[in-house]
Amino acid sequence: MAETVAVIGLGGMGSGIAGSLLNHGHTVTVYNRTAAAAAPLVARGARPAATPAEAVAPGGIVITMVANDAALEAVAEGAGGFLDRLGADGVHIVMGTHSTALVRRLAGRSQLVAAPVFGRPSAAATGKLWILQSGAAAAKARVRPLLEAASQGIFDIGEAPEAAAVGKIAGNFMIAAATEAMGEAFALLEKSGADARLWHDMMSKTIFACPIYANYGGFILDRAFSPPGFRLTLGAKDIGLALAAGQERSVPMPFASVLRDRFLTAVAQGRGDQDWTAIALNAANDAGLNTD
Amino acid sequence: MAETVAVIGLGGMGSGIAGSLLNHGHTVTVYNRTAAAAAPLVARGARPAATPAEAVAPGGIVITMVANDAALEAVAEGAGGFLDRLGADGVHIVMGTHSTALVRRLAGRSQLVAAPVFGRPSAAATGKLWILQSGAAAAKARVRPLLEAASQGIFDIGEAPEAAAVGKIAGNFMIAAATEAMGEAFALLEKSGADARLWHDMMSKTIFACPIYANYGGFILDRAFSPPGFRLTLGAKDIGLALAAGQERSVPMPFASVLRDRFLTAVAQGRGDQDWTAIALNAANDAGLNTD
Amino acid sequence: MAETVAVIGLGGMGSGIAGSLLNHGHTVTVYNRTAAAAAPLVARGARPAATPAEAVAPGGIVITMVANDAALEAVAEGAGGFLDRLGADGVHIVMGTHSTALVRRLAGRSQLVAAPVFGRPSAAATGKLWILQSGAAAAKARVRPLLEAASQGIFDIGEAPEAAAVGKIAGNFMIAAATEAMGEAFALLEKSGADARLWHDMMSKTIFACPIYANYGGFILDRAFSPPGFRLTLGAKDIGLALAAGQERSVPMPFASVLRDRFLTAVAQGRGDQDWTAIALNAANDAGLNTD
Amino acid sequence: MAETVAVIGLGGMGSGIAGSLLNHGHTVTVYNRTAAAAAPLVARGARPAATPAEAVAPGGIVITMVANDAALEAVAEGAGGFLDRLGADGVHIVMGTHSTALVRRLAGRSQLVAAPVFGRPSAAATGKLWILQSGAAAAKARVRPLLEAASQGIFDIGEAPEAAAVGKIAGNFMIAAATEAMGEAFALLEKSGADARLWHDMMSKTIFACPIYANYGGFILDRAFSPPGFRLTLGAKDIGLALAAGQERSVPMPFASVLRDRFLTAVAQGRGDQDWTAIALNAANDAGLNTD
Repeated sequence: MAETVAVIGLGGMGSGIAGSLLNHGHTVTVYNRTAAAAAPLVARGARPAATPAEAVAPGGIVITMVANDAALEAVAEGAGGFLDRLGADGVHIVMGTHSTALVRRLAGRSQLVAAPVFGRPSAAATGKLWILQSGAAAAKARVRPLLEAASQGIFDIGEAPEAAAVGKIAGNFMIAAATEAMGEAFALLEKSGADARLWHDMMSKTIFACPIYANYGGFILDRAFSPPGFRLTLGAKDIGLALAAGQERSVPMPFASVLRDRFLTAVAQGRGDQDWTAIALNAANDAGLNTD
Repeated sequence: MAETVAVIGLGGMGSGIAGSLLNHGHTVTVYNRTAAAAAPLVARGARPAATPAEAVAPGGIVITMVANDAALEAVAEGAGGFLDRLGADGVHIVMGTHSTALVRRLAGRSQLVAAPVFGRPSAAATGKLWILQSGAAAAKARVRPLLEAASQGIFDIGEAPEAAAVGKIAGNFMIAAATEAMGEAFALLEKSGADARLWHDMMSKTIFACPIYANYGGFILDRAFSPPGFRLTLGAKDIGLALAAGQERSVPMPFASVLRDRFLTAVAQGRGDQDWTAIALNAANDAGLNTD
Repeated sequence: MAETVAVIGLGGMGSGIAGSLLNHGHTVTVYNRTAAAAAPLVARGARPAATPAEAVAPGGIVITMVANDAALEAVAEGAGGFLDRLGADGVHIVMGTHSTALVRRLAGRSQLVAAPVFGRPSAAATGKLWILQSGAAAAKARVRPLLEAASQGIFDIGEAPEAAAVGKIAGNFMIAAATEAMGEAFALLEKSGADARLWHDMMSKTIFACPIYANYGGFILDRAFSPPGFRLTLGAKDIGLALAAGQERSVPMPFASVLRDRFLTAVAQGRGDQDWTAIALNAANDAGLNTD
Repeated sequence: MAETVAVIGLGGMGSGIAGSLLNHGHTVTVYNRTAAAAAPLVARGARPAATPAEAVAPGGIVITMVANDAALEAVAEGAGGFLDRLGADGVHIVMGTHSTALVRRLAGRSQLVAAPVFGRPSAAATGKLWILQSGAAAAKARVRPLLEAASQGIFDIGEAPEAAAVGKIAGNFMIAAATEAMGEAFALLEKSGADARLWHDMMSKTIFACPIYANYGGFILDRAFSPPGFRLTLGAKDIGLALAAGQERSVPMPFASVLRDRFLTAVAQGRGDQDWTAIALNAANDAGLNTD
């Protein structure tokens, strides 16, 4: 029998996940800080809740998909937060990208499955996300049908809730690093008079024949930064999480440090609301290429 | 009718290419600085030459696959060099990785097709290289059957000989950048108590499902650096070529700069003869992980 | 008439400042988390307090010199914290190195003079610190005799409390940058067979004839890292403050990013309790020089 | 008795040195690629030479002060070059900034004293340069009066000609590093609303009370980049020499790598003919400060 599940945080990603759950016949309760985002889901049968606490049942299951640590702390522990009501037997599926420190702390309040996702909102709506999960075996078994509804594949990385959290952070770092590498390569090719588009075509059909290089490279070449698939300020936050995780464990990350500065430059120059692939423009700007 | 072609430089890659040409019925003349390397090819029907000049015919075709600019200058222009004999109508296929400055200069001496390759020596021997080519249309048409014999795909990037040269340099830069990114990510995961191998398995089956991440990530996790598929000192040379090309065109490349220092550190610490993926150990060493 | 003043935080620097105040005839109340540190000052006439709140008088003056933001929050706002008792008319002189965010927030609770110092503990004890101050004019006028007792010079940087805080952070960043630059230069000289000591002698007598280069360069050349004049982990914290300030204002700082990684590497390799100039060993280690 | 000496290379620095030699009663022969630069010195008694070779006497003394390695190779070994005529007993004083590789090679052709200078052209004209020297003891003794005429201090760094060459390169690296550090610090202060000028005043009177910080910091704050005291493209060359020296000896230099990219960016954005302190604008530009 399909479980009842609360979904808290109804941005593009959270709404997509809730929609996939509805598609699979789950009973879904939804909460969003600004209530309007809930309307399309309510029209499809979701039950709206006035507070995070009201969305969950004691010992039930709640999915959070919110933008940052502060937002997660607010819905979990703030006024009307769900943790007290959820209780130690309830399962909290953390699908957003959060600091390892916060995930570790929240894991002491309920059963916690870290289940961050890779994919864009459109993949969430069609159940095509990739999910990386970690947490206690029993909790993972219980929520498995829910994660399957939203994804085309679930990869397990162990029992420690922190593991999937750091895995997500590391993945986003790798994406940003690939973006910067393409930005530098494209700038070099363009200033050398070579056709960056033909070169990218080869790379993304051969040794780099994978979605990040194929798709993100295309966004960069097309300057397709608006509307954002993933906002640059969120990317900046995620690199900050990578650096914070590295700080906590004494792991120097020189590429992450370069990326930090690239994101800050992009924000300082007014690109914070563009897609995060726009950090690739830094290389072009520094090389004196007219990029606008 | 199959062309006669000279192959100069019989390391693993050059020998593989010569072998593929023989497999396709081409008449092949071979030259190597140290003659012993020619023996297996001679046994298969190749004709050995005592000097580069002797290997080529006026107006003929020559492939060079040598380790660096100095070696290319030596075989082309040094004592016994082939360029004078090859003449302006001969075609020089440059398959090694060389500076844009040298390729540009040599393009004035003969018909020049830059045709650098991606792939390991085993791919050369089985005709499975990826080739990026640039040069004048007529010359490219003439050598096409030869390049097809050695490759599973040829990507064209225009008329300027320099274009494919810089494309190759940019490609190797991208590979090294991916290596460093994985090195940093693995170090972060390992010090956080997460299973880097499970994480890599996910990445290389989803958003980074391409040969560089799948294969090179495995080398790093397995510490499989000897024998080298591509020697670390050669990788250092190629990052130097990227920086030199950037210098020439005023293209700052912060990731390439980090990589330069990573390669130098690896060389200083005695890893110059390992596979170039060993630069990923720098991140582990800096993080205090015991890597040996 | 000399003012009564509370000094909270009696490490080497705070003890030195309190001693200088006693030397100048001020009435001094002292508080330290571990009470033993107060004994030598009490023997010289200081009055010990059991809590931060007990150390201050309503509308009085308090100096804080504690190790980090958490410690400052604890003594100011935690259990037994002094801010409620000090009141809006009291003056809080912040002499430690703290985040701009915290200084800005605490400035809303009392009169706040940011008065961070440059100098080692021995300079504090002899009234030879350099002080950078900012804050409201009246408050600065009131505390001037106190700051003069501890210093050989006071430099004013305006009314905003945050100004001196960021000025201190920027100063420590500059010191760390000079340290790293010397580390790289020394490594280059040593591996080139040149005498780094003779070279340093020239530099510190000519174009770099100033304390940081003369003294810190000497520490590096002598490997004089223990006991620490300023602990490496504190330097790491200060670079973190610089990066956080830059993050808040969108100021990319590539040198600070390199320094962050240098500090992390030093901590990972067990040098956290050495003097912060030990970050210069990273360059030597990377170059393969045997530094131990 | 004063020696006869040839001075080759009459830019601002070379002319200043020649003038100081004339001031001290030395007999001076001068050569410059474009002869007009010699006129003011000829008017003061210098003898003009039509070629480098003609400027020197067998077994005599020649000072070279030219812009880069190519220029030094041209005057020493090119058509009309002086080395053959100077001979093995003549002394070649290399006062320009050159690669360690070239200095090492030229040291095999004559007695060679590397004597690079620190100071601006005005200091050369008034005999106020700082000189770093290395070379064989007898040669250094012979040329000592000449170097004294041009300088306020000579620092010896041993017998190996390469030593002073790498010392000069390391010194210029340190200057550029200080410039970048100030650029980042100023950007942070300005965006934080602090007065960078007051802060710089403190720093350059206390812990950084030395010419580089005092003078160069002022240039940056005043945007006093034209006319250049030392052209940015020459600074770029010198960082390239530092990186090349590090490459040769396997010495990674992350600060030098950042500086490389800073110089390239400045050149790409049209600042190549400004003073090299203009690299400090990169930090301001990246932070979104309007710097023009």
